[in-house]
Amino acid sequence: MKTSTFLALALSMGAVDAAAQTGSQTGSLSRQDVRAVSPALERYADEKLANGLWKRPGLSPRDRSVVTLAAVITRNQGVLLPEQLNLALDNGVKPAEISEIIAHLAFYAGWGNAMAATAIAKEVFAARGIGADQLPRSAVDFLPLDEKTEADRAARVEQGTGPASPGLVRDTANVLFRDLWLRPDLAPRDRSLVTVSALISAGHVEQIPYHLNRAMDNGLTRAEASEVISHLAYYAGWPSAFSAAPVARSVFEKRSAN
Amino acid sequence: MKTSTFLALALSMGAVDAAAQTGSQTGSLSRQDVRAVSPALERYADEKLANGLWKRPGLSPRDRSVVTLAAVITRNQGVLLPEQLNLALDNGVKPAEISEIIAHLAFYAGWGNAMAATAIAKEVFAARGIGADQLPRSAVDFLPLDEKTEADRAARVEQGTGPASPGLVRDTANVLFRDLWLRPDLAPRDRSLVTVSALISAGHVEQIPYHLNRAMDNGLTRAEASEVISHLAYYAGWPSAFSAAPVARSVFEKRSAN
Amino acid sequence: MKTSTFLALALSMGAVDAAAQTGSQTGSLSRQDVRAVSPALERYADEKLANGLWKRPGLSPRDRSVVTLAAVITRNQGVLLPEQLNLALDNGVKPAEISEIIAHLAFYAGWGNAMAATAIAKEVFAARGIGADQLPRSAVDFLPLDEKTEADRAARVEQGTGPASPGLVRDTANVLFRDLWLRPDLAPRDRSLVTVSALISAGHVEQIPYHLNRAMDNGLTRAEASEVISHLAYYAGWPSAFSAAPVARSVFEKRSAN
Repeated sequence: MKTSTFLALALSMGAVDAAAQTGSQTGSLSRQDVRAVSPALERYADEKLANGLWKRPGLSPRDRSVVTLAAVITRNQGVLLPEQLNLALDNGVKPAEISEIIAHLAFYAGWGNAMAATAIAKEVFAARGIGADQLPRSAVDFLPLDEKTEADRAARVEQGTGPASPGLVRDTANVLFRDLWLRPDLAPRDRSLVTVSALISAGHVEQIPYHLNRAMDNGLTRAEASEVISHLAYYAGWPSAFSAAPVARSVFEKRSAN
Repeated sequence: MKTSTFLALALSMGAVDAAAQTGSQTGSLSRQDVRAVSPALERYADEKLANGLWKRPGLSPRDRSVVTLAAVITRNQGVLLPEQLNLALDNGVKPAEISEIIAHLAFYAGWGNAMAATAIAKEVFAARGIGADQLPRSAVDFLPLDEKTEADRAARVEQGTGPASPGLVRDTANVLFRDLWLRPDLAPRDRSLVTVSALISAGHVEQIPYHLNRAMDNGLTRAEASEVISHLAYYAGWPSAFSAAPVARSVFEKRSAN
Repeated sequence: MKTSTFLALALSMGAVDAAAQTGSQTGSLSRQDVRAVSPALERYADEKLANGLWKRPGLSPRDRSVVTLAAVITRNQGVLLPEQLNLALDNGVKPAEISEIIAHLAFYAGWGNAMAATAIAKEVFAARGIGADQLPRSAVDFLPLDEKTEADRAARVEQGTGPASPGLVRDTANVLFRDLWLRPDLAPRDRSLVTVSALISAGHVEQIPYHLNRAMDNGLTRAEASEVISHLAYYAGWPSAFSAAPVARSVFEKRSAN
């Protein structure tokens, strides 16, 4: 049987998970490195991560990669990033999307986090022969702006933040919502996924409701959002997931009530 | 007088603190490195840390090492980790315990934090000739599970988190409380110490009450818990300690009232 | 026209911003490195940071450097630190002030953050020929202590924190407010600026009111404080700025009402 036929058959049998790329999950460390300190961690990497979390339904491997990249960059985990960038590319995240994820996180995780990620992504891109032709240009044709949604957002920020920091209000409009968010090479739903993952990973729970609602308005399902939280428990730590869960629950309940 | 006789005498005179291993507290930097930037920091390292904090009563040097490792790994402070791992071993933390501390923090601080720590611990273990025979195996005989406590915990998590993330509820039981926490080479009291230290170091105050109560149920005294907070002020920063203090106070008061 | 004449003329015409040192804002990465991953980030570095944020009024370039150093050290952003240290020196932050900023952050961001910063600052100082004669000594003549303010502060901490951690209360007085804060080579207003920036960068919002009030009592204007928040949006991430803004607003309102 040819590989392509086998793959088509496997897909038709619902065995898509078997094809999921999972990586070793030990980042830049070899299995022997991990075993030399913690044989338990080597087992968890296999059993709970590579053959557990990454293969379970609820969130596609591609989305798991987007979420993991957001967590790893937000928490500046250089040791995991080369493997996770390669895994993301293997799981179908496009180079142009990775480029935009890093630029997005410059603003949602901090400029230095994006620069640290850029230093590593440069090596991964070079090793895979990914050149300028696969990256979004600096100036692009923006997605159309939903003026109503943006006006609501701006009014909300003006009310809460305006009296404290007019500069922040202006930059939020001009740099984020009338520039960054309109760049077309990362879908709004994926920008939301990155943003929510960054907020959970950094413990900014008070800003989860706005962005989780926006993510769901942009197409993230409730089942996916649930699984984002449990996925992030592994990469951002259990406490980050537990802090996010009641906030997400409240968002889910309010959306169900409407 | 022979050294051993002198030491026995010193110990019998209550001078145990004099024997405490404190390290230079400047991590991978020499005293000259520190002096070339901040002579004040060199003085603080000596006066406030090595000859102050680490020698004062309230918490044993061994426990200070456990707490410090948790803080340094949670905050991904590679510059301090080699010295602190050596200091922990000198202060009586066993290689098997360090192995389990790192595995524990994979889940309570994030997978990448544990991998970064593993990369450094591997070098320290190799330099000290610590081999596989001194490490816990991947599969171990679990400690007995207290079914009542676990049922209460599971019910509490199901209620708060279940509606938001069923996957997180399942993993919390299967990966953490029916696996990680039952591994025998780190005592439950020490797992609690690591967990509370990680929560304080990362600012997850809302989860301190559950785990501080669990720590005290597992044998951590109130005086020790108090000193954990002031110890962590140095390694996780004063703001982390100040955020934790009122939460700990409330836990102490409720336990006294019962 | 001689350069000095031109500069004097430019300054007299209010063109002081043209003289602001801004750096490339790409840290240890070259423009080509950044372009190889994200041409958008290269544009943002120029347009929004170097030629935007750093040149706008509301906060002097020197204060922007103080705030940025605090953010970068608090978040352990090694990739940005060499450039930001050089930029700070170019913008008029003295070597003695940088020495004290790092020592201050040892306590407000964590000992390991200061040690990591020291390792990098040592190289920058060496490259610029900055020696011991330009650094504050370890023992210095302290600034006079305002006993009334200190007694109020101590009473407040005793009430909130004392029952949870007597050690923390003692160290806060002896190490911080009767030692660190009295060192003369960083003005109290600048220590406050560093402290507030560290709190915002690490998300410790509950401690912003005390230190923001103290900063304003020490001479920070409301307009400067506003711009600190929008400046930090770039270096600590938008979520940190958004979490801080309502807290700052409440401080501003209470001060206006008095």
